Amino acid sequence: MKKMPMPPMVYNKWGTLDEAKELSPSIQKMLGSMLGVTKPAPVQEPKLAASRATEGDLAALGRIVGEAFVSTAVEHRRPRARGKSYLDLLDWRMGEEISAPDAVVTPETEEQILEILQYCSAEGIAVVPFGGGTSVVGGINPVQGEGHRAVISVDLARFDALEDVDAESGLATLGAGLMGPHAELKLAEYGLQLGHFPQSFPYATIGGFAATRSSGQNSAGYGRFDDMVRELTVVTPQGIIRPGQASPATAAGPSLKQLFLGSEGLFGIITRVRVHVHPIPEAKLYEAFTFPTFDKGVAALRAVEQSGANPAVLRLSDEIESSVNLTSTDKIGESESEDNKGCRAIAMFEGSEEHARRTHQETRSVMLAHGGTSVGEGPARQWEKGRFGAPVLRDTLMDAGALCETLETATDWSNVPRLKKAVGTALASQLVGESAALIMCHVSHVYATGCSLYFTIVAGASEDNESTARKWRAAKSAATEAMTKNGGTVTHHHAVGTDHLPWMSEEISPLGINILKAVKRELDPAGILNPGKTFELPDNAERTLI
Amino acid sequence: MKKMPMPPMVYNKWGTLDEAKELSPSIQKMLGSMLGVTKPAPVQEPKLAASRATEGDLAALGRIVGEAFVSTAVEHRRPRARGKSYLDLLDWRMGEEISAPDAVVTPETEEQILEILQYCSAEGIAVVPFGGGTSVVGGINPVQGEGHRAVISVDLARFDALEDVDAESGLATLGAGLMGPHAELKLAEYGLQLGHFPQSFPYATIGGFAATRSSGQNSAGYGRFDDMVRELTVVTPQGIIRPGQASPATAAGPSLKQLFLGSEGLFGIITRVRVHVHPIPEAKLYEAFTFPTFDKGVAALRAVEQSGANPAVLRLSDEIESSVNLTSTDKIGESESEDNKGCRAIAMFEGSEEHARRTHQETRSVMLAHGGTSVGEGPARQWEKGRFGAPVLRDTLMDAGALCETLETATDWSNVPRLKKAVGTALASQLVGESAALIMCHVSHVYATGCSLYFTIVAGASEDNESTARKWRAAKSAATEAMTKNGGTVTHHHAVGTDHLPWMSEEISPLGINILKAVKRELDPAGILNPGKTFELPDNAERTLI
Repeated sequence: MKKMPMPPMVYNKWGTLDEAKELSPSIQKMLGSMLGVTKPAPVQEPKLAASRATEGDLAALGRIVGEAFVSTAVEHRRPRARGKSYLDLLDWRMGEEISAPDAVVTPETEEQILEILQYCSAEGIAVVPFGGGTSVVGGINPVQGEGHRAVISVDLARFDALEDVDAESGLATLGAGLMGPHAELKLAEYGLQLGHFPQSFPYATIGGFAATRSSGQNSAGYGRFDDMVRELTVVTPQGIIRPGQASPATAAGPSLKQLFLGSEGLFGIITRVRVHVHPIPEAKLYEAFTFPTFDKGVAALRAVEQSGANPAVLRLSDEIESSVNLTSTDKIGESESEDNKGCRAIAMFEGSEEHARRTHQETRSVMLAHGGTSVGEGPARQWEKGRFGAPVLRDTLMDAGALCETLETATDWSNVPRLKKAVGTALASQLVGESAALIMCHVSHVYATGCSLYFTIVAGASEDNESTARKWRAAKSAATEAMTKNGGTVTHHHAVGTDHLPWMSEEISPLGINILKAVKRELDPAGILNPGKTFELPDNAERTLI
Repeated sequence: MKKMPMPPMVYNKWGTLDEAKELSPSIQKMLGSMLGVTKPAPVQEPKLAASRATEGDLAALGRIVGEAFVSTAVEHRRPRARGKSYLDLLDWRMGEEISAPDAVVTPETEEQILEILQYCSAEGIAVVPFGGGTSVVGGINPVQGEGHRAVISVDLARFDALEDVDAESGLATLGAGLMGPHAELKLAEYGLQLGHFPQSFPYATIGGFAATRSSGQNSAGYGRFDDMVRELTVVTPQGIIRPGQASPATAAGPSLKQLFLGSEGLFGIITRVRVHVHPIPEAKLYEAFTFPTFDKGVAALRAVEQSGANPAVLRLSDEIESSVNLTSTDKIGESESEDNKGCRAIAMFEGSEEHARRTHQETRSVMLAHGGTSVGEGPARQWEKGRFGAPVLRDTLMDAGALCETLETATDWSNVPRLKKAVGTALASQLVGESAALIMCHVSHVYATGCSLYFTIVAGASEDNESTARKWRAAKSAATEAMTKNGGTVTHHHAVGTDHLPWMSEEISPLGINILKAVKRELDPAGILNPGKTFELPDNAERTLI
């Protein structure tokens, strides 16, 4: 019996119900004493908007994919209605009507997707591609463009195969609907791994990684997801295209692959991704360090990256993040022993025995030469163990009455102090008032020329969820404005969606927007593909979170 | 006194006159005995087409850039009339009329270029950007589009500054007209280098590297030029755009930078390039190896790249190339001592003392484990010394009556044997007849998933240059067709120009061509920018060299 696939995550939280975490006594104490958190705002039952799909739509879509793979049921529409940003999660607590896709369609082949796109183009129905539903920027929320009468969600769940493996070249083709762990399990049968471990890894999909230019925690060693992609298969309303190339590199004109990477569903629906894969590492080595200041730690990370020492993981928490021990979600807020004070850096090394050893030795000598103190393997191993757990804690913190969210940017090494200060100040300007806010920062992605800055914010929420949402919108807008004005990108690895859209004209210039719109007109003349996202700035848009 | 700049190379040869090389006795002997080369075809004096620029054009362009920087003189038009492909060089020997730009204009600012493009758009004049004139694919040849009444060459020579340096982040902005050595000299004042050393290095420009996705001989360590670029400044008829970003990586939508890299002047004129630069290496280490067969050598190079050992240079010559000792242009054809038989591999290691030592040790142990025999530093140092010299030899060989040219492709590791055989067979099918042809191959660019294959061909020319050109066109077409049909790219690092254009529809698909044409219409609605190149396939194009 065929069954509509269901995303594994709860519709209104991160993760599954059995992942839910309790708050430790130390963090509970911190919430009350430091952040002034008292009691949570009342949670109201949400209402899902009724489906506007007509009998004719359902019959037509059913003829394309089979009746069993078209649904208007609340249980299917609800988990595809919102992503997992803090604002998305707040939406479910407000008791207002929640917009949702009018139908969920789960095709099996590229030809079916092409037919769906042609039907929707003719009928004025917007199409939102759906992978794991982990967007934290409004990327999957059902926005409809001008002249559209409905929105459908096209779920890639049935594109779940490992299509081919070329172990000699280190290449494999994965279905876009495969979630991180399933992709790794299938590759492991060949002794291979992808090495892409973003925090969304347990739930996000291969297609989503490509559509959003995801970057994983091992990006120092394995690169960003956009570095890993050799070729995409994309279904556009104008036909199927395979941007990428037969060879590892080419000088045959502009890169079409790089035009579809990060296109967030606006140019077409990604169905398969050919990626660079690696043998499962023979050896893994770990070492953690502390630095007396964040600036000294940053200088050390820079020296490691510029030397070419090539660790697989390299990260650094600032003083505040280190002091609340955020690297281990179970121990947040517990004070550290004296020798662990300062800024905590974590490094991992992978590959052949020889490669892991050499990269470890070279990294270690650069870290020590730059004022680092080794604190052994322990903290690095602990971090690795708990590294996908943090997002679950956000829901628990919300339940306890706290505002909790993250945001991120990247910049050149020389600009790190200015950008960190500007974003931190912008956040504080909106969040710190009668009580304090915890504004923590870490470097989690390093490059020869610069690094990312990832901010985690915990503050007291307002007495009602509407006020809290307004407060967060103001803080996020101020932070994004600070990035734009201080040499940062508005997003290093979370994509644009709706939430960063107001700043895209500044990020890529109005002429850049026109170029992307010209490509969009060529591929999607009816404008049905994920409208109102990424670069589809409304003419009267204000520079604030919309 | 201001003066129109002149490219340093002779208009009808590679390099300058004082670089000209004699043929060694060993190679002279080889030409006669093995390749049946007798006497060279007669060389006829070429005629340059008269300029069609009107008085009005010259006055208008003079008002924009200053009279002194507009010229219709033969001495200025002739060196901008052809690139440096074998077919270009043959053109100068045939006594036929040579098409040439109708005027050469040398602007100083982006604003001047914008005015030039606006004038040419209104007047129907095609514009070919000019850097060093080293294209080997017809990239700078004056093709005019439909409805154009003239073609001008816009020379970037006055964009020759090192604009800014951020040594901490390893970033610098270079004028597009700076030639390789001048860029390196300017960077050296800051203790920095770019590390981009294609064979065209002495004459090619920063803008040309970006426009053609150039790849240098140190690409294993420093990446391709497209990897090095952070941001471009491009003047389009619709305005000035700076594709790229403030940060080392971003998830803010599709990559516009990757759309302008490899755009070969069809979207706009690149004026400045912000690139990743490195400290001048503390240490350089060298080692050469031999392998009993090419396949074994390829397996070793693959293992090195997949281990992450990170040499700066890694190359391998096949049996034939190794046997004629092509790694040293002064000793071509000299037989080697016994212990140098087999396939020659060359490796270099750079960086801090520690990094050079570690990457050397790791590479060495992988090479030895895969059947390599060390032959010491000598051959690697010798290769480095003579590495820009080979193209000059082509002219001497032509003077002696030989056909001599190179072509290149790239593919996955698993496909190397098939592609090498297919291209070699295709070349032989057109070039080997009564006498033999020397068809040599090396791997000069390595990636984790595959490598380039670079073919050098020496054969007997025909009795007249027209027949020789036909013969080479047939051979190059057969080789390119073999790449397309056997999993290779039509160009790994020489770009498309006119010569690879007939295969672009197969390389990137007809829908891919439509996307690039849509971008072109948006940026260059009058179609004046370098028409008839890269993806501007005429509707009735045949798959043969045009």
